[in-house]
Order: sequence, then structure tokens, then C-alpha cells
Amino acid sequence: MKAMIKFRFVGTAYNGYQVQPGTIPTVQRALNEATRALFGYDCDVMGCSRTDAGVHARAFCAAVSKKGQRDLPTSIAAANIPRALCNYLPNDIAVTDACFVPDDFHPRYAVAAKEYEYRFYSSPLRDPFEDMRSWHIPCPLLPDAVERMNRAAACFVGTHNFASYMAQGSKITEPTRTVEYATVERQGSILSFRVCADGFLYNMVRIMAGTLYEVAVGRKEPQDIRASIEARDRVAAGLTAPPHGLYLSRVFYRRPDVLPSHWE
Amino acid sequence: MKAMIKFRFVGTAYNGYQVQPGTIPTVQRALNEATRALFGYDCDVMGCSRTDAGVHARAFCAAVSKKGQRDLPTSIAAANIPRALCNYLPNDIAVTDACFVPDDFHPRYAVAAKEYEYRFYSSPLRDPFEDMRSWHIPCPLLPDAVERMNRAAACFVGTHNFASYMAQGSKITEPTRTVEYATVERQGSILSFRVCADGFLYNMVRIMAGTLYEVAVGRKEPQDIRASIEARDRVAAGLTAPPHGLYLSRVFYRRPDVLPSHWE
Repeated sequence: MKAMIKFRFVGTAYNGYQVQPGTIPTVQRALNEATRALFGYDCDVMGCSRTDAGVHARAFCAAVSKKGQRDLPTSIAAANIPRALCNYLPNDIAVTDACFVPDDFHPRYAVAAKEYEYRFYSSPLRDPFEDMRSWHIPCPLLPDAVERMNRAAACFVGTHNFASYMAQGSKITEPTRTVEYATVERQGSILSFRVCADGFLYNMVRIMAGTLYEVAVGRKEPQDIRASIEARDRVAAGLTAPPHGLYLSRVFYRRPDVLPSHWE
Repeated sequence: MKAMIKFRFVGTAYNGYQVQPGTIPTVQRALNEATRALFGYDCDVMGCSRTDAGVHARAFCAAVSKKGQRDLPTSIAAANIPRALCNYLPNDIAVTDACFVPDDFHPRYAVAAKEYEYRFYSSPLRDPFEDMRSWHIPCPLLPDAVERMNRAAACFVGTHNFASYMAQGSKITEPTRTVEYATVERQGSILSFRVCADGFLYNMVRIMAGTLYEVAVGRKEPQDIRASIEARDRVAAGLTAPPHGLYLSRVFYRRPDVLPSHWE
């Protein structure tokens, strides 16, 4: 058995999830150090996803095993792992759940779908409490911005070739993904775009968010989105929204038999 | 005429509002630099209150005049001051409003009442997104904690000698204050204590919050609070809650004739 952990992090201080050469701070590096301190040996902490620098997570998942092995020899009960790991983690990362799964459970391949949230802060002036936690949009949105964004977002739903919504230079050769839902909700000055898909191309949510921003301010029309997808060309979509508005918010796994029912 | 400004700040990086000797970062120091950059000369930025290190504000007020003078010679319109000052401020401080007031308006003496909010985060595990923005209470609260806290908070309302709710060593000789309201509301894992009074003693809200915490976990009973006030002795009240849960949330002024109607 190895451990699956679920954790949240404020991504501002990190150069993404994945360990990078040298001493660049990443979330995985922090988890490597915490798991070594707790379990007493080096561990592999394999994440469910990669993230860009500055991106946040409310429910990142990772599998923890002894380095170079498929299992995690330990007598620590799963229920005690979150609190114990938190003791070894900086304040901007917290493990919230843990369970044991079979050695062959793969934290990335077993993902059925992921949900991302992109937060826009619409206000003439910036809010210090939203700094680095949403994308500040100082210019006025159209009065029917949320309705327009929802009409645009509805075009993302379904199975499409999303080559237009992939960072230029990305090496992925099969850019077809299935979007389950894509909606925008407003709460006060915060507009929240939620999108769930079986997989995401590099920068896909940030390009979607940047395109929805252009729809919200009137630079693009909701009916342009369908054509932007069909073009299969990055220039047909809108700008790439900055990373600090993006949150990995839910991870859905294919294997309900090996994960506890509350996991999702 | 001089300017009144309203601003918000995340207090984590600051050693309180008031300028201190040397190069210690304070909110007032940041405002001194921003006003000098905008108006082209040194300014006095006189705040409505002092705050401890780490305390936040959603609506701090200050009067801005040319240094050593009672007015602020400028051709900048009040409506343009917030955005202009924001350009010269760090991301954890933002000016949200400005107006011109008579030279004799005093930003502290003209305060009729202030409202503070104290935020508790009740959860076994910490949340990185709440780090330094609320007081994390990992131990379980009693099932009727909010009701108990409200019964306790109700005892604060009215005109009382609050010597028990003042930091030991404070030099204030007249500790009588009038509390207008004091209530606790729950939203998910966040418990929010709001208290409004005509003035606050040093650490008064933090001692109230610490005492309410003791009521919430069962270390004190709601009916103990009245006696704790009557004791006029610091040891009769509870512990001092940490500064990072505290927010100055509203400032009410006596002079509606000189402030715009939306100011509060």
C-alpha cells in the first residue's frame, strides 16, 4: 500500500508543483521534505497534475511511496497523516486528507476529470485582500457580462479539438478534450469561472479565462467562441489570463473502490 | 481644505499603523511615501486609530495635509486621489476613497464609533488561504458555541468600566467605554465577532475575542462575563487573541456635514 494525500496551497511563493533543478521552491520539494521528516526516509511524491508558478490549489492530490519503491512502509494511521505532515509544511501548504491505496494506483492516470476555478476581481480599485488571489479587472465589464461569459463558456462544453486553447509551442499532439461543464457565477465583485474536463492542455484554462475576459468587456462576442475552437489555431482564442487567478479545485478519480467516499 | 482618505490593508507585513523610529515598516510610513510622491511635498498622514503589528483594516481613515500645515495644496480632484495613491503603494495597501474636509477636521477626535471584526477559523487542520487572516482554532468548539459566544458578547453591550479588558500596563486612566453592539456569526468554518464602541482600550477587542474563545470551548461560561467586567481586573478576563484575526472594519464619524454620504 502507498498513501494518497490531498492538500491545498497558496501558490504565490512557488514555482509550480513539480520539482525543478537547483533550489527553486516548488510545492513538491516542500512535500518531499515533509514526507522525509515524517516517514524517516526519502519519498516519491507523485502529483495528479502539473501547475504553473503562482497557481493555487484547493484539492491537489499526490501519491506518496518510499523513493524508488511502490509502497510506503509505515505504522502511521492514515487519519493521522494530514496533521503530522502539516507540522512539517510551511503555512502556505496544508494536507487535508490521506488514505492508503494499492501500489498500482496511479495518481495521474487514474484521474477521470479535474475542475479548475478561475477568479476575476472586477473593481476600479484593487483590493489588498485579493492580491495574488484573483485577476484584478479595473476596467468596467458590460452590464450583461456574466450572461455573455456563460454563453461563451457553454461553447467549451463537449468533446472538441482545443488546439486554439493550448499554449503555442506545446508538444501535445492530440489536443482533443471533453469538457463536462463550464460556468461563470458572480458573488459581489468576484466572478468565478469553473470548468471541468477529462484533461487540460497547457494553459488551457488560462486561455479560456482570458477569452472570457474579452467577452466580458466587449472585445469578443459570445458567438465568436465556437469559431475560435474550430480554427484550431492559438491566435483565434483570446489572451492568456495570469496564473494567480487560477485554482485547481477538484480532482475526480476513476477508482471509487480504492478511495474513501468523501474523497472528492 | 485637507484630504481624508479611506484605505484597506493586509497588516501582516507591517508593524502596525503608526510610524516608528528607524526603518521599521508601518502603514503610515508607506502612506507618507505615497503622498509625498503624489503631491510633491512631505505630508502628515494622521490616522483615525493605532493598530498592533499584524492587524488588518478594511476601512482605515486618515487626514492628509502638507507637513506642519493644516491644509493640502493640490489641484488633484478628490475622485482621482484613490487611484493615484494606489500607484505609489505596495499591493497590501489600497486607498478606496477620498474627499476634502475643513482644516479643523480631526481624524481621531471626530470619530463617533469604530467597528472591529475578529475572525476565528474553526477546523482541525489549518487552511493556507486563511493563514495570517484569522485565528486558527484546531480544538473542537462546543456544539452551541455560537449561541454561547453571543450570550457572552451581549454582556459587553452598554457603558462599562472595561479595565478587565485592557492590556496590563496601559496608561489609560479612564477605562469607561460604550459598546453599541457585539455579535458573533458563523459562516462555514469562520466565526466572526463584530463589536462597535465609541472607543477601545489597548488590546480590548483581542481580550474580548480571547475570552469568547474560552466561552466557545467551555473553559468559561457565558454568565461569567458580567463578573469579569465588574472585577475591573485584567486577570478576570480571558487570554489575548492573536493580532492576525483582527480587522478594523468601519469608522463612524460625528460630522456627516463634512463627509460624503457614502463615506461610512
